[in-house]
Order: sequence, then C-alpha cells, then structure tokens
Amino acid sequence: MNKDLRIRWDSVQKLLVKAGSDACLISTNVNIYYLTEQIFTGFLYLPAEGNPIEFVQRPSGRGGEQTVSIRKPEDIPGSLKDRDIPLPENLFLEEDQIAYSEFVRLKKAFNPARTGNASAILRQARMIKTPWEIGQFRISAAKHAEAYREIPAVFRKGMTDIEFQIEIERIMRKQGSLGIFRVHGRNMDIFMGSILTGNNAATPSPFDFALGGAGLHPAIPIGASGETVREGTSVMVDMAGNFTAYLSDMTRVFSFGELPQEAYRAHRLSMAMHSRLMEEAGPGTGCDEIFEWSIQMAEKEGFAANFMGTAQQAKFVGHGVGLEINELPVLTGRSKDCLLPGMVIAYEPKFVLPGTGAVGNENTYLVTDSGIEKLTVFEEDIINLTNE
Amino acid sequence: MNKDLRIRWDSVQKLLVKAGSDACLISTNVNIYYLTEQIFTGFLYLPAEGNPIEFVQRPSGRGGEQTVSIRKPEDIPGSLKDRDIPLPENLFLEEDQIAYSEFVRLKKAFNPARTGNASAILRQARMIKTPWEIGQFRISAAKHAEAYREIPAVFRKGMTDIEFQIEIERIMRKQGSLGIFRVHGRNMDIFMGSILTGNNAATPSPFDFALGGAGLHPAIPIGASGETVREGTSVMVDMAGNFTAYLSDMTRVFSFGELPQEAYRAHRLSMAMHSRLMEEAGPGTGCDEIFEWSIQMAEKEGFAANFMGTAQQAKFVGHGVGLEINELPVLTGRSKDCLLPGMVIAYEPKFVLPGTGAVGNENTYLVTDSGIEKLTVFEEDIINLTNE
Repeated sequence: MNKDLRIRWDSVQKLLVKAGSDACLISTNVNIYYLTEQIFTGFLYLPAEGNPIEFVQRPSGRGGEQTVSIRKPEDIPGSLKDRDIPLPENLFLEEDQIAYSEFVRLKKAFNPARTGNASAILRQARMIKTPWEIGQFRISAAKHAEAYREIPAVFRKGMTDIEFQIEIERIMRKQGSLGIFRVHGRNMDIFMGSILTGNNAATPSPFDFALGGAGLHPAIPIGASGETVREGTSVMVDMAGNFTAYLSDMTRVFSFGELPQEAYRAHRLSMAMHSRLMEEAGPGTGCDEIFEWSIQMAEKEGFAANFMGTAQQAKFVGHGVGLEINELPVLTGRSKDCLLPGMVIAYEPKFVLPGTGAVGNENTYLVTDSGIEKLTVFEEDIINLTNE
Repeated sequence: MNKDLRIRWDSVQKLLVKAGSDACLISTNVNIYYLTEQIFTGFLYLPAEGNPIEFVQRPSGRGGEQTVSIRKPEDIPGSLKDRDIPLPENLFLEEDQIAYSEFVRLKKAFNPARTGNASAILRQARMIKTPWEIGQFRISAAKHAEAYREIPAVFRKGMTDIEFQIEIERIMRKQGSLGIFRVHGRNMDIFMGSILTGNNAATPSPFDFALGGAGLHPAIPIGASGETVREGTSVMVDMAGNFTAYLSDMTRVFSFGELPQEAYRAHRLSMAMHSRLMEEAGPGTGCDEIFEWSIQMAEKEGFAANFMGTAQQAKFVGHGVGLEINELPVLTGRSKDCLLPGMVIAYEPKFVLPGTGAVGNENTYLVTDSGIEKLTVFEEDIINLTNE
C-alpha cells in the first residue's frame, strides 16, 4: 500500500465529509493522477469512507482488486451494487472541469438526490502537498536548474527569440522534460514555456499568465514572436519544469550585452522582493499581504507602471504550482488564503521596461512549518550571454 | 471584409436556423479561431442572422465596431440590449466543451427559454473546409514534408527513441511548427506527436489515438518510452503538422537496417490501401465502407491481428483533421457519414509487428468534387536510416 496516496485520499475524503458528500467521481487526467499516480481513461470512484475503485475504459488489461473494466460510465452504478456499495445520495462531480454534456450523462446514470463540486474539493486538497509530492518537486527543480545552466552556451548573435527558444527546448527535453504540462482552465494555451525579448515582452496576450508576448501565429498568441534578439535587450526565460508530474516554475533573465541601468535596478528590486518573501513569509502570511507589499515596493521605487506588465498588468504576483502550473493559492489582492505548511508557490515579481524587455526572477518555494524554502536554486543575477 | 470568414459564419448560421436556434455563444479557443481567425479570452456571439459580436475580456485594447470590452459574461445581455438586439430564446452553448459550471453561469446570465448544443453544430460546420482553410492545410503539409526530409540526417546508432524524437522535434520547430496543437476531448494528452520503435509500438495507451506507446512517465503515458532503437526494428514517426492552425497529419516509417520481410509486406499492404482510397473513394463514399474494406484487406493478407494495434486495436482507420487533430468524420465501422467535397481526412492503416515495431503510412487527403487529392506528398517506402 502506497502510504502517500492514502494521505491524499484522506485529505479529499475529509473535505467530502465536511461538504456532506457520500462520494466523488473523478475523470480528469490531473485528478486521476493525483489519486492513483497513473493515468487511465475512465473514472475513479472515491467514497467519503473506504478505498477508491478504478472504473477503466482504456487501456485494456489493467488489473487489480480495486479495478473494474467498463465500457461506459452507465456500467458503474450496477458494478457498485454488485459490490454491495450503496449508490451515493450526494455525488460530487468535477463541475469546473468536465463538460456540461458529460455532467448531464453522469448525473443521469447515477440519479443522485444531490450533486456538488468535486473540482473545488480537489483544488483545495491539492493545495497542500504530501511528502512524496514535495520530493517530486525537488527532482523537477534540480533538473530545471541543470537545464538553465546550459542556456548561455546555445546563444548566438543574430538569433531570433524563437531560434533561441528552440535550442532551450532541446536542452529541457534532453534533461528529461516531459514536454506537455497541465494548466487549469481550458483557455490557457502555452507550449513548454515562454521566451520574451525586447518590446515583445509588453505585448498583451489573451491568456492569464503573468506576461504575454505576441507569439508566432494568431492561433497561439503567446510568447516568442520571431524577432531578432537585439544587443542591449533582455531575454526572459520562463520554461516549465515538467521533469516529473509536479512542475517547478522558474524564470531567469539573460541579456545580450549590457542593459540600461534602470533594468538592473528593477531586477535588483525583484530580487529584494524575493528576499523579503524568504525573510518575512511563512505559515499564516496572507496571500493578499504578499501581493500588497510587492505592489508597494514597486511603487516606492517608481516602477509601478512597469510591474507585471505595462499596457496589460497581471493582477497577481504568484500562484501555487503542482500537477498544474496554476494551482491554489493565488498571490493576489483579493485572496483570502494564508500560506500553510506544505504549499508550494511560485513567486514572480516581474517588470516590463519599454525598449529593453522584461526583468525579474521567478522561484518556486515550499512553505515549511517555520518559513519558506527555495526549491529553484540557480544564479539570480542577470546573466550576460556575451560573457560566456 | 474577409469573405472566407463569411462562408464559415454562413455555414454555422444555416445549422443554427435548421436547429431552431436564435444564436450561439462561443468561448473555446478552437471555435473562436474558426469564426474570427484570432484568439481572445471572452465570447463570440453569433446570431442565426447578421454579424457576430466579439465580447472580449483579454487582451486589453482590442478594437473594432463589432468588439465590446467586458469584464464578465454577465455584462453581455445588457450590452446586447443597448444595441437593440433581442436576447435569444433558444441559445446554443458549447455543451461538449465548456465546463458544467460555466454552462450554468451562462444560462443564468441569459435566462433563455431553451438551450442547445453549439459544440455539435461547430463540429459539423468545421467538417467541410473553406478555400482559405484548404490553403492553410497546403502550407502545413508542404512544411511537414520538408521537415520529414531532414529526419535521416539526425539519426545516430545507439540513440534512444526519445533522443531521436528530440532531434525530430527540433527539425519540426525550425521548420515553423507552432508547438502545441489542439485535440478534441479533454483526456487526450500528447506532445507534438509520437515516435514508436520496437515493442513499445504495441503498448496500449489510455488515449484514443491509433497507436499507443508507454511514454516516458506515468503522468503522460503515450509515445516514446526511452528504449534504444535496435537494429532490425522500425521507427514510426507520426508528428503533427502544426505549421498553421490547420493540422496536416502524416506518418512515415524508418528502419534501423533491414527489417523482416513480413514488415515490408505489411507496409506494402498499407500502401495498397492508400492506393485504393485514392482510386475508389470520393464524394459519396461511406466512412464505414473505407473502414470495412481496410479490415478486409488486412484479413485477406493475414494481418488482422496486427492491424491498428495488437493487444488493444483502434476502432478507426482515419479521421477528419483541421484546427483539431481529431475532427469529423471518423473512418469507423459505426459511422453514418459519407465523404463530401471539402472534407480533409487523415487515413492511417497501420500494423504492429511484435519484435519489429509499427509499419504503415498516414496521409492527409482533401476530398475534391471528383475524388481525393493527397496533401502530404513525401516518400512512402520504408526509409532505411543507415543508408543515408
């Protein structure tokens, strides 16, 4: 028996009991992985008490006492009856993730007296990471740093942002990047991460990431746009650390030659914000507090109009990470969450400077019992690509 | 005015009228792109008659007479009233794509007498491609062939499948691949495409693609698994041709040295199936017919147990392609669809041979007024990587 899985089941089950639910039925990849450490097409039935049952459509040939092969979701209620498991009166489904038509189908198949939202429960449970999950982040973060170390060696003068990105993607993949990573919310398209140079860093995007960029094509309007990396501009590298299922999030800034002094000043301000987080934050710190003092520090140094974008400014300075790149909590002014031990958060105070590009780091931190531990350990100054 | 967009609006509007709908409200990236050639976060309101209106949340600063900036979907009904547009009595929403909770929120905001399924309507409209869309496929297919031409040059003896794949990914990206591509159905994870060698080709996957593969990690169980490409095995390359928003789908087979004669025999059978499609299929051909004669040809040559997998066999031999890799029609025994001019389909009769790997090609075809035109023009024999 995998003890760590049991911790995750317990945490979801406690929330189900609290919400008056008898069981939840899970079918999204991310939540199935969270509760089984596998991916299958089908359904995980997790009662408020007792062990989960896997109802598997694909792949064929999955075995185990708690695994039932099914053709369609309508097979599940009969299978539960065969096991003398009463059908749930208050069934929780992933209301924020499954399509309306799937919800209707499942509700009809189970015909429960009431339904509730399993998406919200899973998001809440997943916010506090278990020991095994934290170990997975450590693996991702270490490989992430190894990969970033190789970046300067692949830069060539005259490269476009996308040419540079392609070489960085190759470094990430050779280090073990799984390629795709998961994002919460169906309208958040992004490929491996983002490389922003010069004025493209200021281009607003339709997606709710910290920064934008025009992208290569109207079909995927985010990130590198194909412009040449010019001398005197920054290159912000924000690739997802998907070396395990648990994502480290790390941004570092490179420069082609020297940048204007203002850029170093803004970058040092970002570093000072990170230092403040490390020194002052810990269990009990309000997510809104972190957002507020970040804004105040930016204002005090005269960078308010550059903070988290220019024409379009992000309304957050960080976010939880995990199986998805945008988990809870959100470090935003409207948040009611406090930091709690076991949370893993990315903090990304960034500045966009017209003519120069974006500066500022992003690190992934673990909230411990007594404070904050940095997981993404790598050079934090701006790295001059022409010095290497 | 973009005449081609007008064709697409008309085609959706005709289906709305036929279904008795007054309007549809579109919010998924893929359908917004189809109807605007842009991506934004927000909603496209397409009435059954007249021009659509864009209700945009992000990015900021989008202009135009038919564009309204909104903060939240609840702002839309008031904005329609301001324009003297009556609220729809029968509003179609993307029921197969938007989450249950989003559906509930939109329904509450509009309070229509009836609702219907815009997902089905858009899937049906998108099945028949317009002249501009067909031009986009031609661009993707040509670049796809250019990229595949470079594959033999990056192969090295002793490479693992994933090492080979990383070099192929780089070729694709340098040729202009946009990276991510869209897939219908939320449980279909895949990164850029799939490279299958040796026995990994037979490994069942949870996803409903033609073939599987174990993948690198339980979180993304599909494709290359990290095993070394061995002499005497095939390498099946099936990367998505996402060089525009419209995807070409093309599979080719490479070999490390000579393969057993059975592999060439099976591959020639796949080529014969493609020839038959080119010769016999056209407007009016049933998608079930294509499936049936493919199965029969496999049976006749003694390859039924190898066709479309071994332990787990795909239930289709091809599928429509477009903005998503798995559009309508589906070439399967249960299909009631016939080929129609303007359809673009991928046909992929493949065989898995234990000990050797997978063989068989996939091409993307346009259904013309009189027959079938191949869009993915590239060498079709098995390409020996050690001959180059």
